[in-house]
Amino acid sequence: MGSLPLEEAVPQPLDPEAFSDDSHAVLNFLVEYYRDVDKYPVRAASLEPGRLRGLLPDAAPEWGQPMDAILEDVRRDILPGLTHWQSPSFFAYFPMNASSAGFAGEMLSAGLNVVPFIWAASPAAAELEGVVVDWMGRLLGLPRGLLFAGGGGGVLQGSTCEAVVCTLAAARDRALGRDGAAVLARLVVYASDQTHVTFQKGARLVGIPPANFRVVATSAASGHGLTADAVRAAVEADVARGLVPLYLCATVGTTGVGAVDPVRELGEVARRHGMWMHVDAAYAGSAAICPEFQGYLDGAELADSVSMNPHKWFLTNADCCCLWVARPRDLTAALSTDPEYLKNVFSCSAQDDKDVIVSAAASAIDYKDWQISLSRRFRAIKLWVVLRRYGAAGLRAHVRSHVTAAQWFEGAVANDERFEVVAPRKFSLVCFRLIRPPGLFSDDTDVNDMNRELLAGVNATGRAFMTHFVVDGKFVIRLAVGGAATEMRHVRDVWDLLQRVAGDVLRRYQS
Amino acid sequence: MGSLPLEEAVPQPLDPEAFSDDSHAVLNFLVEYYRDVDKYPVRAASLEPGRLRGLLPDAAPEWGQPMDAILEDVRRDILPGLTHWQSPSFFAYFPMNASSAGFAGEMLSAGLNVVPFIWAASPAAAELEGVVVDWMGRLLGLPRGLLFAGGGGGVLQGSTCEAVVCTLAAARDRALGRDGAAVLARLVVYASDQTHVTFQKGARLVGIPPANFRVVATSAASGHGLTADAVRAAVEADVARGLVPLYLCATVGTTGVGAVDPVRELGEVARRHGMWMHVDAAYAGSAAICPEFQGYLDGAELADSVSMNPHKWFLTNADCCCLWVARPRDLTAALSTDPEYLKNVFSCSAQDDKDVIVSAAASAIDYKDWQISLSRRFRAIKLWVVLRRYGAAGLRAHVRSHVTAAQWFEGAVANDERFEVVAPRKFSLVCFRLIRPPGLFSDDTDVNDMNRELLAGVNATGRAFMTHFVVDGKFVIRLAVGGAATEMRHVRDVWDLLQRVAGDVLRRYQS
Repeated sequence: MGSLPLEEAVPQPLDPEAFSDDSHAVLNFLVEYYRDVDKYPVRAASLEPGRLRGLLPDAAPEWGQPMDAILEDVRRDILPGLTHWQSPSFFAYFPMNASSAGFAGEMLSAGLNVVPFIWAASPAAAELEGVVVDWMGRLLGLPRGLLFAGGGGGVLQGSTCEAVVCTLAAARDRALGRDGAAVLARLVVYASDQTHVTFQKGARLVGIPPANFRVVATSAASGHGLTADAVRAAVEADVARGLVPLYLCATVGTTGVGAVDPVRELGEVARRHGMWMHVDAAYAGSAAICPEFQGYLDGAELADSVSMNPHKWFLTNADCCCLWVARPRDLTAALSTDPEYLKNVFSCSAQDDKDVIVSAAASAIDYKDWQISLSRRFRAIKLWVVLRRYGAAGLRAHVRSHVTAAQWFEGAVANDERFEVVAPRKFSLVCFRLIRPPGLFSDDTDVNDMNRELLAGVNATGRAFMTHFVVDGKFVIRLAVGGAATEMRHVRDVWDLLQRVAGDVLRRYQS
Repeated sequence: MGSLPLEEAVPQPLDPEAFSDDSHAVLNFLVEYYRDVDKYPVRAASLEPGRLRGLLPDAAPEWGQPMDAILEDVRRDILPGLTHWQSPSFFAYFPMNASSAGFAGEMLSAGLNVVPFIWAASPAAAELEGVVVDWMGRLLGLPRGLLFAGGGGGVLQGSTCEAVVCTLAAARDRALGRDGAAVLARLVVYASDQTHVTFQKGARLVGIPPANFRVVATSAASGHGLTADAVRAAVEADVARGLVPLYLCATVGTTGVGAVDPVRELGEVARRHGMWMHVDAAYAGSAAICPEFQGYLDGAELADSVSMNPHKWFLTNADCCCLWVARPRDLTAALSTDPEYLKNVFSCSAQDDKDVIVSAAASAIDYKDWQISLSRRFRAIKLWVVLRRYGAAGLRAHVRSHVTAAQWFEGAVANDERFEVVAPRKFSLVCFRLIRPPGLFSDDTDVNDMNRELLAGVNATGRAFMTHFVVDGKFVIRLAVGGAATEMRHVRDVWDLLQRVAGDVLRRYQS
C-alpha cells in the first residue's frame, strides 16, 4: 500500500484541461440561459411539491457522469422548477442581482478558493476586503467614523441576518460587561412593525427574551417610518419598569413598502438611552450611491453600525452584505477566539505569542473575529470586480434607471382611476392596489380578495412575478424594480398585463 | 423623465455577449492559474501588512474598466498576497477543496442566482437540497432517522459554526420551553479540550454564560478522545450544583490531531441526562463515505444532529456544510419566522392562511427556518454536480488516495529516528515533531523551539505550507493531506524538504 502512486487512483479534480472543458460547457449553458431567460415563466412553471424529488434517484450514482449529461438534466428536470430571479420581469420580493462582473467575481472567488479567516491565511484577501468596504462606505456617503480610514471599519458577510446577530451580540456583551450577567433578561430591543423579521429572529438567537422585543407601531402619517416620539415613549415605559434599552433598529427602505425611518432623530434617542443603533439599508443602501438619495442616511454618524446588501440591487451575485461598525472593538470583543491552531504573529490577539513566523505587525485584520463563522469565502474580490468593471457612474446609472422606471409606473397607476398607490414611492418599489369599484363591496375584505385575484392572475400568466404585503389592513401588490436585465420595456409590459388582468377581474365582479 | 428609455442609460449587466466575453477571460485566467499554481510560493509571498492597501486607490473608480485590465491587476497585485490553498503542496489547517465539478456547481449557483429561502421562491432548488442531503447521509452510512426518508432531515449551510449556532439555539429553546426562561443562566454545554473553538463561540452567541462552557480534559491515553467517564463526572458535578446539562459535542476528527470521540458512549451519557448531542465530523466526515471509516460514526442514531463540510475534503468549493437533525421540528421551532411578505400557501406555517396562490400542499420545505439567515445561495446544485460528476466511487478514490499518502508519510516519519509521530493517525492528518536530539537540551521548551524553527524553515521555502498545534505541551507540526491536486509525489517532496531543513536546524543546534 505504502507507495501506491496516487496518480493512478484519483480523478484529477483540478486538471486544467478537464477544468476548462467542464467550465466551458457550463458557460455555454449560462449564456444560452441568459439569452432565453425572458421566455421562461418567471415564477416556477411547476409548483407541485415533490415533483423534483420524484424525478431523482434515492442515492448518489456510483460512477461519475459527463458534464453534458448533468447539464441536460438541469435543463430538463431543474429549470422548470426554478423561479427565474434573473428574468427581466421578476418584480417580487427584492431583486437579487446577477451581472457579468458579479459572476466574474464569483468565478475568481470560487476558483482561487482561499479562506481569509485570519489575515495570515491569505493577506491580500483580507486587505482587499478592508479596501472595498471603505470604497463602498465612501460611495454611500457614510460618515468617516464608520470607515477604517476613520477608526471604524467594515466586513463582508453573507446576509443582513448574520450582521444583525453579530451587532446584537456586540451590544449585548457590552451591556453584560457593564451591568453584569443578570441583566440579560432585562435587555430590550426596539424596532417598528415594518422592520424586517430578521431582527426579531436575531434577538431571539442571542438570548434576548422574546417578550423584550418591542414592535413599535407606525402609521401612514409618517409614511410608515418609525417616529422618535414613539420610540421614546416605549423606551421610557420600559425604563420605568426596570428594563434596560439595548438596541434600536432604524431601517432605510423597509421590505414591505420601502419606508424610511428618520436616522438622525432615532439616533438621538438611542444616544440618550445608551442604546446601540443599527441602520439597516439592505435594499435602499444601493440607492445612496446617488447623491440625491444620501439624505436618507443623514445622521448615520449617530449609528453604531450600518449594513446594506450589494447582492440585492448592486449587481453583485449572492451572497454579499456590507456591515460597518463605529467601534470594531465592540464587535471583536463579542466574536473573537484564539485557538492554538490559528496562532500567528500577525494576529492582534497573538501579539505576545512567540510563533512560527519570525516577524510582527499590528494592522492585519482577522476577519473571523468580525463574523459568526470561522471559515469564509473571498467575497471581497467579487465586490471589487463589480466596482471596477462598472465604476461608480455605471452603478449610479443602473440604480437611476430603475428608479425612473418605478417613477413611470407609479405615475401610470396614479393616472388609472381603478387603482391607487398605497404608499409613497421613495426608491424603486411601488406599492399599489385596485380600489373599491363604484357600487361594489361592503368592506375592505372584498377589496383585498379582488387584489389577491389580480396578483394571482398576473403571476399565473408566467409573464411577470410580483409579491404582496399587507399594510393598514390593505392587501397591496409590490412591484420591486431592480433586476439586472430589467429595462423600461419590461415595466411597461407588466403595466399592460396588470391592466388587462384587472379588467378581467373587475368584469367578473361586475357581471 | 417619465419615459426615458432605460436601454440608453444602463450598462446592460446581463447582456449574453458581454457575459460570455468577461467570463471567458476569467476562465482563461483560472486555467492558467491551475496550470501554474504549483510554481507559486504556497504561503503568500508577501507577508507585509498594508502592502495591498498601499497599492490600491482610496476610492472606487468613477468609470468602468475592461475585464482584462482588472485581471492584470489580480495577477500583479493580488496573487502575490494570496496563500494558495489550491496548491498541491498546501498541507496547512484543513484542506479547502476546489474541483472542476465544484466550480461548475458554483457557476450554476451564481449564474442562476435564485434564492430558495422559501420553497415557493424556487421549488426545485429547495427540493434538490433535500435530495442531496439524503444522498450524502446515505453515503456516510448515517442512521435513517437523520434523513428525510426516516423522519429527520438535512440542510446545507455555510459553515459548521452556523450549524452549531442553530443546534445550540434549538437545544436551548427546547430547555426554555420545558423549564422556563430563568433556566438560561443554568444551562451547561460540554466539549473537550480538543473540540473546535467554534462551539465555545456559538454557545456564547446564543446566550449561554461563558462560565457554563465545560472544557473537559482529554489525554494521550484515549488518543485525545473525550471519554464518557470524564463527561459523566463533569455532568454529575454540575447537576449536583443545580445546573442543567444542555448540549454535548462529540467530534469525529478534531482539528488539532484528528482525534475521535466515542460517539455511542457519549450518546448514552447525553441520553441519560436529556442533553442534545451534536456530532461534528467537519473534516473526517468525508472519509465516512468509505466503509472502512464508517465505524467512527457508530452510535450516530443517539445524536440529535450531525454535521460535516463537503467544502473541506469533498471536492466541493466553499462554502458547503451539511447539517442533519433527528427532529426538524426542534430546529424550526427555534428558527421559524412568518412575515407577511413571504406568506404563501405552500409553507407549512401558513397552511391556514388564505393566499395569492390557489393551491395547497404540505411537503414543501422553507429552508429559511433551518438556518440563521433568511436569504441563501443555491448550494444544493453544487454538491449535486460534485456527486454526479465524480460518483461515489470517484470520491472514495479521492479520499483513499490521501489516506494512503498520509499513511506513507507517517511511516516515513516513524522510520526516521530524529522524528516521532505525536498522535496516532486515523485519517489523512499526520502530527509529528523532531524529538530531543541525543545529548542536547534540558527541557521540552527547547524541543518546541527547534520544531518551530523547522516549521518556519519549511514554510519560508515557499515549497510547502503546514501549520502547527500544541498537545500535551508539545509543539507539533501538522501535515493535513487532502488538496484536490495533491498527489503522492507532493507528499514525497514535502518529506524530502522536511528532512533537508531538519538537517540544517539540527546542525545549527549541534555546532
